[in-house]
Amino acid sequence: MQKNSTILTVGSMAFDSVQTPAGKADKVLGGSVNYFSVAASFFSPVQVLGVVGDDFPKTHLDWLETRKIDVSGVQVVPGKTFHWVGSYDKNLNEAKTLSTALNVFEHFDPKLQNKHKECDFIFLANIDPVLQQSVLNQVHKPRLVACDSMNFWITGKPQELKETLKRVDILSINETEAFLLTGEKNINKAAQIIKGMGPSILVVKRGEYGAMLFGPNGIFLAPAYPVDTVVDPTGAGDSFAGAFMGYLASQNADRELGKKDPKKWDSILRHAVISGCTMASFTVQDFSLHRLMRLEFNEFKKRQEELIQMISVKN
Amino acid sequence: MQKNSTILTVGSMAFDSVQTPAGKADKVLGGSVNYFSVAASFFSPVQVLGVVGDDFPKTHLDWLETRKIDVSGVQVVPGKTFHWVGSYDKNLNEAKTLSTALNVFEHFDPKLQNKHKECDFIFLANIDPVLQQSVLNQVHKPRLVACDSMNFWITGKPQELKETLKRVDILSINETEAFLLTGEKNINKAAQIIKGMGPSILVVKRGEYGAMLFGPNGIFLAPAYPVDTVVDPTGAGDSFAGAFMGYLASQNADRELGKKDPKKWDSILRHAVISGCTMASFTVQDFSLHRLMRLEFNEFKKRQEELIQMISVKN
Repeated sequence: MQKNSTILTVGSMAFDSVQTPAGKADKVLGGSVNYFSVAASFFSPVQVLGVVGDDFPKTHLDWLETRKIDVSGVQVVPGKTFHWVGSYDKNLNEAKTLSTALNVFEHFDPKLQNKHKECDFIFLANIDPVLQQSVLNQVHKPRLVACDSMNFWITGKPQELKETLKRVDILSINETEAFLLTGEKNINKAAQIIKGMGPSILVVKRGEYGAMLFGPNGIFLAPAYPVDTVVDPTGAGDSFAGAFMGYLASQNADRELGKKDPKKWDSILRHAVISGCTMASFTVQDFSLHRLMRLEFNEFKKRQEELIQMISVKN
Repeated sequence: MQKNSTILTVGSMAFDSVQTPAGKADKVLGGSVNYFSVAASFFSPVQVLGVVGDDFPKTHLDWLETRKIDVSGVQVVPGKTFHWVGSYDKNLNEAKTLSTALNVFEHFDPKLQNKHKECDFIFLANIDPVLQQSVLNQVHKPRLVACDSMNFWITGKPQELKETLKRVDILSINETEAFLLTGEKNINKAAQIIKGMGPSILVVKRGEYGAMLFGPNGIFLAPAYPVDTVVDPTGAGDSFAGAFMGYLASQNADRELGKKDPKKWDSILRHAVISGCTMASFTVQDFSLHRLMRLEFNEFKKRQEELIQMISVKN
């Protein structure tokens, strides 16, 4: 049987209005699945589940399709698209939400077509854990499931989130969220608790300090690529996850590989984390998806090599 | 001529009273040169310049001598030893100073004996830049000079500090201090400005996130070793610098090597940074120098190997 390395992702599609020390952008394209799918599409085909209002420019969806991102699972419904307004002060690691208008996203109910159900790699972006489970209930036999979450669900729907976590292989989450989820203040201890909740792999995102992988062969510490100017950190985590999952899918690296060859699985995971760090470093260099939209894969590979050189003890 | 890889260091010897989320310690051994010299002594002989009051227990000096740390340059004068009182809240990266009694340290004037003047590796710990220059005026032909500084001198004696920087090869400083010194908020840009001030090598310490080396062959990013419990971060930076300089001296890695073989120089500097990160990870596991005092070099080497494994893309 031919393996299917298409990624299915579900999450928010949004307009963002954001202010940072570098400037501001009004009602630009945002939302977790947009960042995720554009980043992932450098490596693997992607199918998107989401919802937008009838104010969402068709040009956006058309552009995603030029990236071979299948948007036929995006519901276009009467009303307004989800709109997030936020700002960052000098501490670019933490967004301040000024307003959240869920709009049509409030009643989002992902309905999967047959092609979605056959996807082998699933990424549940940061949405209501009940919707994350609804997607898992509809897919057939995914070979690898990863998810994200956030403070809002950790405190608001802890039981539902724990049900989701029982069913995922990889959790990708911010460091402060890992602390909140576990009540621990030390990341090693938090990681052990989270692994007990279900995921066998934990990726901890640390903003400008990079990411940690709690993998099958110990910890991998990946610093962020140091860019000259951070314009807007929005979407860094989701584009990290996109490149991470995209790389895994491109390598057909699934949980079976983890059982058969943990060492190879660990190596691929480490490389996937580096891909994520590299992709995120482009995202933050402009507002919205602007930098990713003009990113060439050769530029990506060049910077990734540079990052690997920057973390090599023997140069 | 036989090369002399002895390190000369000058800085504070102190009593620390410190409170952290893990507990408290009262009037324990502290001060930059104590942390520095104990860490460095794992690699190279060390000579210390400092001053203590007549309340300083002779057992402390005796113990340093068992480590082959030459304390004959420590002045014991009538009065009280420098006493720092500080605390850390949950953000273990930032100490809050509650009181500073300089005591005998206020009138410290380092006087070098002939053996001190012959040292080839110099580390000027965080003290008045005027005293740092006084030491440089007295030494003969050091092969490598490194220094540290802090906010107090950056804002209080900026011109004097800049005079020191013109005469050093390596500056080792915290990230926030690098920003303050340069007025820049981006570390790449700050590093370029600092290199223009004199040092050809910059080491940026980032607390629990590790360190960055702006070296002869580009940037090296070294994450911190993730310990299970941080008891007290005091001295992490100084013991980092101690292992860093100790390793360089043990390899006879001086500025001449930098000119002759920049690639080898870069490799040794990267390894020195890893040694620094590893040493600091032990320091923070207990109050004062307690963990370093009982550290075996084999333990150190084992953890260093573990850290190298944690940052290797190919495992």
